[in-house]
Amino acid sequence: MRNLLLYLQYDGTYYHGWQIQPEDVTVQQTVEAAIFKIFKEEISVAGCSRTDAGVHAKKYALSFFTDCKIPADRVAVALNTALPCDIRALVCVEVCENFHARFDTVSKTYQYIINNGNFDVFMRNYCWSVKNKLDIQKMKDAAKFFIGKHDFKSFMTGDKDSTVRTVFLLDIVQNGDFINIFISADGFLYNMVRIITGTLKRVGEGKLDADKIPEIIKARDRRLAGETAPPQGLYLYDVKYENY
Amino acid sequence: MRNLLLYLQYDGTYYHGWQIQPEDVTVQQTVEAAIFKIFKEEISVAGCSRTDAGVHAKKYALSFFTDCKIPADRVAVALNTALPCDIRALVCVEVCENFHARFDTVSKTYQYIINNGNFDVFMRNYCWSVKNKLDIQKMKDAAKFFIGKHDFKSFMTGDKDSTVRTVFLLDIVQNGDFINIFISADGFLYNMVRIITGTLKRVGEGKLDADKIPEIIKARDRRLAGETAPPQGLYLYDVKYENY
Repeated sequence: MRNLLLYLQYDGTYYHGWQIQPEDVTVQQTVEAAIFKIFKEEISVAGCSRTDAGVHAKKYALSFFTDCKIPADRVAVALNTALPCDIRALVCVEVCENFHARFDTVSKTYQYIINNGNFDVFMRNYCWSVKNKLDIQKMKDAAKFFIGKHDFKSFMTGDKDSTVRTVFLLDIVQNGDFINIFISADGFLYNMVRIITGTLKRVGEGKLDADKIPEIIKARDRRLAGETAPPQGLYLYDVKYENY
Repeated sequence: MRNLLLYLQYDGTYYHGWQIQPEDVTVQQTVEAAIFKIFKEEISVAGCSRTDAGVHAKKYALSFFTDCKIPADRVAVALNTALPCDIRALVCVEVCENFHARFDTVSKTYQYIINNGNFDVFMRNYCWSVKNKLDIQKMKDAAKFFIGKHDFKSFMTGDKDSTVRTVFLLDIVQNGDFINIFISADGFLYNMVRIITGTLKRVGEGKLDADKIPEIIKARDRRLAGETAPPQGLYLYDVKYENY
């Protein structure tokens, strides 16, 4: 039995998220079908994250055990012959037997893209089109309050026992009409990036003071944060492991 | 009766081109349906170009006559409420009664996007992914032979009486892994941009000498030119009229 770590890129527009569901087509199911076709094995893969419907991945990691002898460096090319063109296998490496793509993540980075210019038909599935002119400096002022170890209960959907996470980086990078938000953390709560993005948007619109962010974090109350930004602007951008 | 000139942007991925067809969904039909919904008139619009299935438009022009009283500067906003999100009305102006969006074009500009880096799932419907490393300088050397008034019979699909066109500009602009080809002319033959692109690609691959282009033009023989580049990399980029 070998344990393989595989990196993917996918356009999530036409999938109901990563995780297998009984009725809908998901990325996990599509990848497992391609593995079955190439490896002739029914394999259940472990993904690094459960991305939602419409969310994309520029670098997604998964791991799985196999008896198949295909050399690791040829797995990506082989799988791409069986994957649809909105999912691409990037690289595959053999890892130690106790490696797990979800539990062993050291950090993950998400990118969120806001289009603050005119609506662009070519980007309609790949960004959030925001009409109100956003003040980037205010957004940057607000962003710094999220960095560090905090209880992010105000910035999640649903409930969970442990809501403390460490944000390593929250960068806001302007590129013409597009505003890119990059956020790295040791882990993310459900909808955390999308709610932080919605909150930063409110700050950028001048409807919320950047200085209010510490209070909102402290309150542990979802109602005080901004709206949940839509899924199509969100990309899993990077996943880091200790040894790979 | 007023004559209106309307500019559009559309993602051609899911349309069978511009022109109305009996069986398939086209951009023209979709726009006319939106006009019917807003203007309550059955109007046949005149488009500036017959783009093929999968071809996009960053700026497309059409004109039509109407009895409707909606002010021209409110037409785009009104139509966007009835158009699907892969077609956007940009601007509408009232024009003189003998204006025609197709016959009055002074020049049109097309953009062709080649991805010369790794396959990118997000760009799969928006560029031609070319693996062989292309030599941009050779492509630029070849490009200059196309500029001017020439018989472009070698660079068209099908046949036509008059195959002389004037190319005003053929620019090749690199942007990271992406190679953008911009070509302006007084008119284009069927598949002309895609065949010129396929020919430039051959030159970039080192399979055809840039200096051979004048001979290929002179031969008026389609078989001597390069392959027809696929539709998804092609964009109608601009349309110019004398007075608008």
